[in-house]
Amino acid sequence: MIGVIGGTGHLGLGLAMRWAGAGIAVVIGSRSPERAREAAARVQAATGGGPADGMGNLEAARAAELIVVTVPAGAHVETLTAIAAGVQGKVVIDTTVPLGSPPTSVTPLPEGSAAERTQHMLGDRARVVAAFHTVPASLLADLTRPIDCDVLVCGDDAAAKARVVELAQATGARAVDVGALQQAHTLERLTALLVSAGRRVRRHELGIRITGL
Amino acid sequence: MIGVIGGTGHLGLGLAMRWAGAGIAVVIGSRSPERAREAAARVQAATGGGPADGMGNLEAARAAELIVVTVPAGAHVETLTAIAAGVQGKVVIDTTVPLGSPPTSVTPLPEGSAAERTQHMLGDRARVVAAFHTVPASLLADLTRPIDCDVLVCGDDAAAKARVVELAQATGARAVDVGALQQAHTLERLTALLVSAGRRVRRHELGIRITGL
Repeated sequence: MIGVIGGTGHLGLGLAMRWAGAGIAVVIGSRSPERAREAAARVQAATGGGPADGMGNLEAARAAELIVVTVPAGAHVETLTAIAAGVQGKVVIDTTVPLGSPPTSVTPLPEGSAAERTQHMLGDRARVVAAFHTVPASLLADLTRPIDCDVLVCGDDAAAKARVVELAQATGARAVDVGALQQAHTLERLTALLVSAGRRVRRHELGIRITGL
Repeated sequence: MIGVIGGTGHLGLGLAMRWAGAGIAVVIGSRSPERAREAAARVQAATGGGPADGMGNLEAARAAELIVVTVPAGAHVETLTAIAAGVQGKVVIDTTVPLGSPPTSVTPLPEGSAAERTQHMLGDRARVVAAFHTVPASLLADLTRPIDCDVLVCGDDAAAKARVVELAQATGARAVDVGALQQAHTLERLTALLVSAGRRVRRHELGIRITGL
């Protein structure tokens, strides 16, 4: 079971739909258990009764075998603090992009990237993998459309990363291992670059594909 | 006429071949005029007599309407100093990637990126555009193969950038405007990320394509 923390947001909901649609059980976490249950109902409706439940963030983290953090950058630290007691020994996927103002840039973080901040905050308790930064949420949430971009995945724990690559492929995307967790800084910046490129041509579903593989 | 500074290297030679092959005149610059002339002869041979000449870096910069800097990061500052007297009023394309050690990372630069360093050093004399970081040199140099990745282009001068987009497309690639010159930092990091991803699967011609355009 995958715990989608902040799963009432666009990215979390999209991921939950893809996974539940593939028969993988998801539990949506939110600060409001009520809103989490509503989101789970939406996932069930979109997937013809796919396996989805909703509860508070910490409860969802405790219930899950693997955790995905999909909260806005402004809620990142607070959310990690809230779920820390539920992550012991688990893989935590961080998707956070600390977009700046304007969102064509990122806010510099002392740890280098939001994903590295997550590893720093959770320490030995969790194995952090960064992924899904550059996949449009609206594309994930539309189950009728194929995902034509790659999920770029990085992390320092090979087994954890292999598990995330599998889960990324279960969404229908191709997953590409781009190396160590420090590559997360580039992945986070890449989202800002896609915002920048998209604004110039009024497109909002840009993604990345690696060629030559 | 395009001046390819450091055009005896892999990237410069590949770009010169693609442009000369498309009938666009190139002048290859090198610290050694002799080596520049040898490289020009290789370009002519590869393109069936395409328009290519060779000379010293400063002479090539002076002779060209538009300048492309394709030198190793270690020679970047020295080369810019050497050509500064020849860039007045011209568009300068910077392709430099300040790869670190290991080359899966970049060396932090006070200006943010090598391209911003170039603009800082050349000041009002030149309009700097960053491009070609993520295009494999070996792919450019093999005129029998189509270029299946994008050329990502950024810069602060719209007219200069439009000219570079045209030249990038003349190589046979698709060019994508990704925004202001500050995006060069992400483009330079992206090369290190491609090195990192490529090492894991023993591929050395990885590139980037933007999806959703």
